[in-house]
This record gives sequence, structure tokens and C-alpha cells, in this order.
Amino acid sequence: MKPTTVGVIGTGRIGRMHTENLVHAVPNAHVKAVADPRLDKAWAETLGIPVRATDVDMILNDPEIEAVIITASSDKHVELIRRAAAAHKHIFCEKPVAFEPQAIEQAQAAVDAAGVKLQVGFNRRFDPSILKMWEAVRAGEVGEIHQLRVTNRDPKAPPIDFVKRSGGLFFDFAIHDFDTVRFLSGSEIVELFAVGAVLVDPEIGKAGDVDTAVITLRLANGALGVIDCSRQTNYGYDQRFEVFGSKGSVFVTNTTPTTVVSSSKGGVVGDKPHENFVGRYREAFIAELSAFVAAVRDGLPVRVGAEDALAAVKAAGAAKTSHLEHRPVRLSEDVQPTSGGKRR
Amino acid sequence: MKPTTVGVIGTGRIGRMHTENLVHAVPNAHVKAVADPRLDKAWAETLGIPVRATDVDMILNDPEIEAVIITASSDKHVELIRRAAAAHKHIFCEKPVAFEPQAIEQAQAAVDAAGVKLQVGFNRRFDPSILKMWEAVRAGEVGEIHQLRVTNRDPKAPPIDFVKRSGGLFFDFAIHDFDTVRFLSGSEIVELFAVGAVLVDPEIGKAGDVDTAVITLRLANGALGVIDCSRQTNYGYDQRFEVFGSKGSVFVTNTTPTTVVSSSKGGVVGDKPHENFVGRYREAFIAELSAFVAAVRDGLPVRVGAEDALAAVKAAGAAKTSHLEHRPVRLSEDVQPTSGGKRR
Amino acid sequence: MKPTTVGVIGTGRIGRMHTENLVHAVPNAHVKAVADPRLDKAWAETLGIPVRATDVDMILNDPEIEAVIITASSDKHVELIRRAAAAHKHIFCEKPVAFEPQAIEQAQAAVDAAGVKLQVGFNRRFDPSILKMWEAVRAGEVGEIHQLRVTNRDPKAPPIDFVKRSGGLFFDFAIHDFDTVRFLSGSEIVELFAVGAVLVDPEIGKAGDVDTAVITLRLANGALGVIDCSRQTNYGYDQRFEVFGSKGSVFVTNTTPTTVVSSSKGGVVGDKPHENFVGRYREAFIAELSAFVAAVRDGLPVRVGAEDALAAVKAAGAAKTSHLEHRPVRLSEDVQPTSGGKRR
Amino acid sequence: MKPTTVGVIGTGRIGRMHTENLVHAVPNAHVKAVADPRLDKAWAETLGIPVRATDVDMILNDPEIEAVIITASSDKHVELIRRAAAAHKHIFCEKPVAFEPQAIEQAQAAVDAAGVKLQVGFNRRFDPSILKMWEAVRAGEVGEIHQLRVTNRDPKAPPIDFVKRSGGLFFDFAIHDFDTVRFLSGSEIVELFAVGAVLVDPEIGKAGDVDTAVITLRLANGALGVIDCSRQTNYGYDQRFEVFGSKGSVFVTNTTPTTVVSSSKGGVVGDKPHENFVGRYREAFIAELSAFVAAVRDGLPVRVGAEDALAAVKAAGAAKTSHLEHRPVRLSEDVQPTSGGKRR
Repeated sequence: MKPTTVGVIGTGRIGRMHTENLVHAVPNAHVKAVADPRLDKAWAETLGIPVRATDVDMILNDPEIEAVIITASSDKHVELIRRAAAAHKHIFCEKPVAFEPQAIEQAQAAVDAAGVKLQVGFNRRFDPSILKMWEAVRAGEVGEIHQLRVTNRDPKAPPIDFVKRSGGLFFDFAIHDFDTVRFLSGSEIVELFAVGAVLVDPEIGKAGDVDTAVITLRLANGALGVIDCSRQTNYGYDQRFEVFGSKGSVFVTNTTPTTVVSSSKGGVVGDKPHENFVGRYREAFIAELSAFVAAVRDGLPVRVGAEDALAAVKAAGAAKTSHLEHRPVRLSEDVQPTSGGKRR
Repeated sequence: MKPTTVGVIGTGRIGRMHTENLVHAVPNAHVKAVADPRLDKAWAETLGIPVRATDVDMILNDPEIEAVIITASSDKHVELIRRAAAAHKHIFCEKPVAFEPQAIEQAQAAVDAAGVKLQVGFNRRFDPSILKMWEAVRAGEVGEIHQLRVTNRDPKAPPIDFVKRSGGLFFDFAIHDFDTVRFLSGSEIVELFAVGAVLVDPEIGKAGDVDTAVITLRLANGALGVIDCSRQTNYGYDQRFEVFGSKGSVFVTNTTPTTVVSSSKGGVVGDKPHENFVGRYREAFIAELSAFVAAVRDGLPVRVGAEDALAAVKAAGAAKTSHLEHRPVRLSEDVQPTSGGKRR
Repeated sequence: MKPTTVGVIGTGRIGRMHTENLVHAVPNAHVKAVADPRLDKAWAETLGIPVRATDVDMILNDPEIEAVIITASSDKHVELIRRAAAAHKHIFCEKPVAFEPQAIEQAQAAVDAAGVKLQVGFNRRFDPSILKMWEAVRAGEVGEIHQLRVTNRDPKAPPIDFVKRSGGLFFDFAIHDFDTVRFLSGSEIVELFAVGAVLVDPEIGKAGDVDTAVITLRLANGALGVIDCSRQTNYGYDQRFEVFGSKGSVFVTNTTPTTVVSSSKGGVVGDKPHENFVGRYREAFIAELSAFVAAVRDGLPVRVGAEDALAAVKAAGAAKTSHLEHRPVRLSEDVQPTSGGKRR
Repeated sequence: MKPTTVGVIGTGRIGRMHTENLVHAVPNAHVKAVADPRLDKAWAETLGIPVRATDVDMILNDPEIEAVIITASSDKHVELIRRAAAAHKHIFCEKPVAFEPQAIEQAQAAVDAAGVKLQVGFNRRFDPSILKMWEAVRAGEVGEIHQLRVTNRDPKAPPIDFVKRSGGLFFDFAIHDFDTVRFLSGSEIVELFAVGAVLVDPEIGKAGDVDTAVITLRLANGALGVIDCSRQTNYGYDQRFEVFGSKGSVFVTNTTPTTVVSSSKGGVVGDKPHENFVGRYREAFIAELSAFVAAVRDGLPVRVGAEDALAAVKAAGAAKTSHLEHRPVRLSEDVQPTSGGKRR
């Protein structure tokens, strides 16, 4: 069986990472083309990618290309999904698919109509530790779930420019946490209460966003959840997860680049957590594309799709509303954060 | 300088523990008397305590006794404080001093009028790990505080009988967490949002209480806090604390009775956390009484007093209101949980 | 049943620690007397000890005293054991009982003739972690034992004056390790090979001792063992133990005064191990005396006796010979380190 | 600059792993050919390797091939090195280069004569944790080195067939440990004492080998070292390293596939160490080939060469002699283990 032929649309930081993983580490994938208005052609040549385009049509019109990886800027995701679906390409799309539920529903409708697959880039679902935790929960090791906890802290605040177009902390950052809670619990978020604050950088506040937040959740299965977020740790990428229930607790601690421990007068010093998501989720990024390629080849359903993107975006919207209106918000409300239009 | 002569009022589980610590481990203390309507006289005799009374007057009327330890049932605390103050005894009172702010204020007024000391039993403030964390925070190691996290989980749910008279999860259990947040942050709780649930035992729900809760806090210094509580872990007493700020994080993990680690086919297995508060806070319980005795002897202020009890009880009341009314509650509101009367 | 009446002979550092433990923490013990030529009488008075003597006869001639704790200087241990046995006192004697096997055998003969108990101060056997490890080994958790490892490192080298009269690294320091290997394995040391070096302090070398050593052991049950020792860590008292066998491994890691972990730019910093044996083995020191008092009261055998002191001293002698003669030494050899006489 | 063209000679387990790493993960390498008498051609085709040969001459005679990876069976290593050197190929050779010092010297002479590079497969030198430890030692963090400790334990004993031709525990297994001690200390092994035992599997003993060993070392810089080895853990691949010195200690603990920790009635259970060397040293295997390719391209010296293979083999020979003759052995002795000829 031949490798699956893939094209990558968008070669920013994440796009380049996915491309390199597809070339080096994902089984049965052949990257035939990359497209980006500002493509670094030397980089693509080094990877041995035959078609190095500035125009996405070079990918969408190529009948050999079976699947596309959409890593263009977020505001183009839905349009690209619709065009790729129309061109009968299977689709892997980075999160966020969109900031509005309706847009995601339209994307979903497009892929459904075309009969192609759409996998969404919630990489954590493919992390070995989180997957093992999920298996433990499924196997009943914690019994009935009582609480879920997610700590999500970036090492450094992103540039203000990114903050402005990112959708903000709830849509850009905590969106992974909403998905993680849904994934680990196997349940839906019914209601949440979010408080945000500007503690890291006043510029983030001026840009209309927060950099610190705590979100309390109530799930359909009765469990409570709590997410805490920060844009800056100084000590690396802090990613901790816990599912606690009637029989006990399963916890995922941080990973570190090394296991070196130094003991001296000053204390017992271990390595810091991985510096950022690239190191922390390296295996997960490879695994999510491997799973996508395998799903395409074997005609199997993808493990995380548009409905998951939709649920996470609804939660992000509710969190923003909760924060702005200072009240608990049910996800069944038709919440539309009032300042939503300025977000993108 | 002679040892300080002490009387213990109330010899339930906590009263006996404090008495034994005073006899065996607290420097410069002499337990002259214990009083309890259902006193186990053989136990008191074994400890070499001369006066073994069923009537508290034997202690209050003894001019040699300089200080009393009040560990009677919670509903008698305020009355005993007033009588001990009137008898010019210094006072150590177990938490909760009372469930109503007004009662605590009356107790405070009584000790102020008598010019005696009143220390409250917030033992965590004397735990070596929490103290070291507090010092690190004071020394600026975390920079400005952005978040505080407290996980407080009991190994087993208490008997329903206790639940009914305990004041409930917020007043009996989370009260330590409110104090811990105030202690570690050096700031006041301004507002909170609490969600509770009955997940451990439906009988707890029938008794009008919850067994699981998540409380989000906003502090005067701008920091956010989150407390999560549960009445049952199955794996021991789970006590974790984190202060996170502009420079990094300080964390206190669980303590274990041993450091044994077994590696075999089944995994790498370490010891469970201490079984309950007696083991976990053994050093803290000794240290709080040692500090109380030292404060009495040296004429120094106590390290945790009625104003701390008051602040914690106000937070507990606000948490109960928040949970019942399903909204964020400011502590400056004159909150009186409507079902408060049934609590005691 | 009345408390057991005890006298303490020798109130140096260890003697004072044992006395305080007997007064404060050991159940059913009454310290009637302490004796030391240079007794600090104020200290003894504070503890409420009635008889504060400079002459040991005050203890040996007191018919009320049932048991003695011998913590005088090491060279007087055997003579004191003989006199105490003759006075029909049960005996707890700090290690080392003596440096020559014959002297220990004489002490044993004396206590046997008098029908009194003799417990030796191998405190590690009463440490909660080591005890739990021992139970795991007994319960078959590691299967058949293949290897034992002991790391024994002191925080700071002792004063040269102590080095000179201590018996040296093998007799004073590694003697605990030989006993630990025997205790954990339930087997006897058959042969060993020791290498020593002077790496910490040349003055230790001038005093005829080593400060660093590695000792390889072969046990009667076929297992191999390895002990590594150092007189100086700079990072606290390093005490690690492992039993490894056909089914897996049981490990005891270091204990720390707190569980505080600080994460910042500089790394993830945990607490150092306990500063010295007083903190590390606090519970063990209390437990060994509690067990001794219980054995006296209940007429039960002691858990560690003269035969254990003898076996450990024979191993220490063999290690010294091995180091000096640079060859493996069997414990069945009648080894007498040639420079042994100068040691004391 | 074009990728460096490489041929792989020998496609057993290790050969296949190296080939896949070269294809997928090593920058600037092009695997043009693989050769093995029993080559799995489908496997090679999937990797896109153009030349799939059963005869090594297809590689040695190809002028485009600049470098070879020798992963044939150990007894052919020296002959292949000589032929590859004669064909002016740079050489990466898996350990062991040979079991006799003379053979390694001949190999070294051949590569020196041809002016090609020879890198030896001591993968640990490229492990991120061990490298960081090495940097800490070089930076003076432990001060002067007093002790080195290596624990090397395989998860499962190899097949007896492998044991017979492997060279035995000292040559096949502990050889990595000798190199690690030399690498971390920056010093040479002067003398050692080895004890071995057959505790895992009597068949290993019948094959003339041991499965358990402890080796004490004395280094030229005065430090002591200790290596403990076992062929079977049941709990994964146990690889621990410590360098301890005048200022403190640097330790490398085991790595685990996940960071999941489960707490329940049964204890607090973490993941086992990686199952075997493939998982444990994945990054190291990629890094050693990346370094080799980079050395070839940039004309730089290799980081681990024939002289390191020679030193490790001399130590292995001395260890075998020490074990057989039951005495400490100096590496300056011209040791030739008497049963050496039967080993291979």
C-alpha cells in the first residue's frame, strides 16, 4: 500500500513542526506539497518536498493529494476547510477551527456533505500520559468521577500582537483545557464560572484580554472541574491533570527533558518542565498525525472531530461571558460574548 | 522559671491529643487539670495529671492555672471563652470558635476586656512545610502572587451524626483552607464563588450538607485562589498547597509515613499520604501549643487569633451563601446563610 | 502496672537525646536517675529527674532501678555492662559495644549469667521505612534476594579528635551498614572486600583512618551486597537502602524536613535530606527505647542483641583487614587487624 | 551541501533501529544501501533505501557511500572495520568492537592508516541526562569526584544462545558501565575488584557466565567507583548513575514512558522505567548517529573512538580475571582471562 499523499497549508511555527513530523516520524505519509504565501523554499527543499507553493490552489487542485493539514492563520480555517472538502480532501485542522459555534457547524456540514474526514488539533488527546490516564479512568480505577483538575500555564506570555488576534485566553489557551476535561470525563460541561485577571502584563489587559484565570465547571455526570491558567511561569510549561473519584485519584505530572538531580548546599535541584509545547507534546504531535493518516488509510473515524471543536468553543464562549458578566453561565444558554466581534 | 500551668477543657479525640502533646512534647507546660463530663480518669492518671474533673469549674476556679485549652464541643466554645476570660485565664481554643461572626466578636470583646490571650487552633500555620512556604513567599521567591491553590481531602467521610452538628463542609472543613489562603497570601478574601455537590455519600446530602466543593476566590491583592475539597479519598489525607506568582511557584506536596518505594511487575509503588490529620500535622499540633505556651510565658502576641477565626468564618458563610444562591458573593455583604439556624 | 524505672549512664549528646526521649516520648518509662561525671544538673532538673549523680554507683546500687541505658564513652561499655548485669539491671547499650569480638562475647556471657536483657543501639532496625522494607522482603515482595545496597554518608566529617578514638570508619560508621545488611537479608556476611580512601580531609588520613569506602559483600544466601560510605556530603545525611531480587526491588529514599518544592528560573528545588541522624532517625530512636522498655516489662526477648553487635564488629574487622591487606577476607578467618590496638 | 551518503552493514535488531533513525531522524544523512545475508527487503523498501543487498561488497565498492554503520554480528566487527577503512569509508561500529585489546588496536591502526573516522557505539554518552550530568561535573558542581555509582539492570535475561556468544556479562553488558565511569569521571580505571554470581538463571551459569555482579573500581584521580549489574529486574530497564564529590552529588534517575501517578487504597503507583534500551536511549541513539554524521561532514573528531573501546574492553577483561581469580586486578597487568578463548 502506497504512502498517503499529503499537502500542508500554512507553514508558520506549527505548520513547520507538523510538516517535519510528517516527513520524519509519521508512518505511511508522503508530503507532496506545502503552500504558504511566505514559504521558506529552502526549508521545504531540505525536507525533499516536491511541490513548494505560495498558492493553496496548487494543493487543492492536485488530484494526487488525498489529505491536507490546515495550519494557516486561524481566521482562514473555516474557509480552507470548506474549499478542501469541496476538493474532496481529508482534513486535519489546527485548533481553533473557529471562534463562533456557527462557523464550526458550517465547516462540519461541508465535510459531511463531501464525505471527508475532519480531525481537529487537540494534541493532548494523543499524549502518552494523558492517554494512559484516560484508560485508567475508563477502566474504573478512580471509580465515579468527583473532580477534574487542569493546570495550564505557559512559560512566557505571547507577543501582544498575537494576543490581539488569538481570541484571548479562553478561546486560544483554555480551549485545550475544556477539551481535556471532556475527554477525560467522557461527559459534557453543563455550567461554568470563570474569573480572569491581568496579573502578568498590563498590555494584555489593554488588548482586552486576561492572562490569569480560574474556571469552575459542573459536568453532566455530576462531577466538578477546575481549570487554572496562566500566561507565564518562568519555570517552563506547566501541564498537570488530575481525575479524582470514588476510588482514588489519577494524576499526570510535568515531564522534564532530563532526570538529573543535583544535591548540594543549596538544595536538591531537579530539571525544569519542558520549555514549551513543542518539547512537552512532541510524541502527541506525532501521534495525532499518525492517527489521522491511519484513519484516512483505513477508512476509520477520526478520534477527535468538529463536534469536539464545537463543544470546546461553546465552553470558551461561556467562560468569556461568565468572566465579563461575573456570573455562572449554563452552556445551554445561547451565549454570545458581547465583545466577541472585536476578538478576531 | 516554672512551667506554665495549664488546664484542658474537653477530652474528646482532639482534647486528648492536645493533652498528650502538652504532657510529652510541649516545653515548659504543666497540665494540672483536665475536665470533661465523661472524663476517662484512668487515661488522665496515666499521664500524671493531678486534677481529673468532670466539672469545668475545677479549672476555672483554680488560681494556679494560667491558661486553658478549650476542646469542648464547638457549641460551647464561646461561652467557655467568656468564662475563662472572666477568670483571667489565657485561652487556646480549637476551631471553630463559632459559626456566627457576632459570636466571635463577642468572644474577642471578652478576652480584650480581660486582657488575656486567645489563640485559635489553625494548626496548619505551624506545619514545617507550610511555614517554610510562607517564608519563601515572604522572601519574595514567587514574586507577586497570582494564584493560590489548596487541595483539602479527608480520607473518609465523617459519621453523619458529626456532619449534622459540624457546621457543614464550608464551616467545619474548608475553614482551614480559608485561613491557609489568608496566611500564605498575607491578603484578604474579597469575593468568592462556591459550588458544592453530594458525590461521596447521599446521606450527607440528606443531612443538608455537601461532600465535594470547589471554591474560587479573589483576594484584595488581586490574586486568584482556588480551593477544592472532598470528604473521601480512600488513599489517605490529601493536603496540597501552591502559591504561584510572577517569579515562579512554591508547592507543598503530601507527606508519607515512610519513603519506601517498591518496583515490580505491577509498577513503582510508593507509600500513601498520612492516614489522617493526627499523623499529617503531628509536628504542627505540638508547635501550635508550644507557641501558645511561649506567648503566655513571654507576654508576646499569639500568632493566630480571634480576628483570623472571624475572617475564616465570614469566608465560610459567604461560601455557603454562594453555594446556596448560586452566585459570586462579596465578603463585604452582610451574608447570613438562610439555613444557618439549622446548622448548629 | 507501674512505669519501668530507668537510669541513664552517660549524658553526652546521645545520652541526652535518649534521656529526653525516655521522659517525653517513650511509654511506661520513668527516668529516676542520670549519672555522668560532668552532668549538667540544670538540664536534668528541667526534665524532672529525681536523682542527678556524677557517680554511676548511684544507679547501680539503687534497687528500684530495673534497667539502665549505657551511653557512656565507648571504651567503658563492656565494663559497665558487666557491672550492670552483676547488679541485675536490664541493659540498653549504645553501639559499639566493643571493638573486639572477645569483649562482646564476655559482655554476652555476663548478661547471660545474670539473666538480664541486653539490647544494642542499632537504631535503623526501628526506622519506619526500613522496618516496612524488611516486612516487604519477609513477605516475599522481592523474591529471592540478589543484591543489597546501602549508601551511608554523613553531612560533615567529625572532629579529628573523635576520629582518633572512634574506631575508624569501618568500626564506627559502617558498622550500622553491616547490621542493616544482616537485618534486611536475614542472612550472614560470608566474605567481603573493602577499599577505602582519604578524599574528604587529609587529617583523617594522618589519624590513620579513611573517609570514603566501598565494601562489596557476599552473603550466606548467595546474595551480593555493596555499601558505600562517606564522611561528608554538604547536602545533609544521605541514607539510602535497596534490596533487589528475583521479583523486583524495594528502595528506601532519603527523608526531608519538609515537602516544599520551589519552581523558578533556576530549576525545581526540593528540600535537602535531614541534617543529621537526630532528625533522620528521631522515630527510630524513640521506637528502639520503647521496644526495650516493652521487652523488659513483658519479659520478651529484645529485637537486637549482643550476637548482632558481635556479627557487625566481626564484619568491621574483616573490612579493615581487607582494606589494609588489599584482598577479599572471609569472616570465618580469625581476623585481627594488626593496627587494631591503636584504634581505641 | 548534500546529505552524507551512508550504508548499513548488518540489519539485526540494532541495525534496523539505527537504519530507521538514519532515515527518519538524523539530519543530513541519506541511507543509500543496507546489506545483510538475511536482509528483509520489504522492510528496506518501505524505508525507501535504493540498494538492498545481501553482500557487503555492494556497500564497500560503492564510491558514493562515504560512511558505513557496522551492526553485523560482533565477531565480524574488526574484519569489517579493516575492509571499510581500506575502502576509505568513515565508520560507526556498534560495541563491542572486539573482545581482545589487540584486535581493537589492529582496527585502530587500520583506520589511522586510511585516515578515516571510527566512532564506537557507546550510546549513553549522548543521552540528554547523562550529558547534562557530565556538564555539571565538568562545571565543578560536585567539586572533586569521590565516588561514582552505576546501576545497570536489564529487564529480562537474554536467550542462552546470546549469552554464549555475547562475551559474557563483563564484556557485553558491563562494558557500557566501564565507559560511563570513564566518561563521567574524565579519569582512567586503575584497578578493580569484581564479584559475580548466578542468581537469575542457572542456565547462564552452565553457559560459563554470571548474571549478577558488583564491581569496585579505583580511578587514577583517586575516586572510587562501584558498578552493580543484573540481567533481570521484572520492572523494566534500570539505569541509574551518580557522581558524588566534595561539593555534592549529581544523580540520574530512571526515565518512564509516562508521568501518570495513581493513588488508591493499594498505594501511590507510578509508571515503571522504560521497558528496554530502545525506549530508554531513543534520543541517545539518534544523537550518536547525528554526531557521527556531523563529524564526517564537518571534518571534526568523533566524540568516542577506538581508544574508548580499548579502555572499556581492558576493564572488562580485568573484571573477568578478578572474578575468576578472586582478587583485585590492576589494569596495567597484562591480563588475559584464561577461559577467554571459550567466550566467543
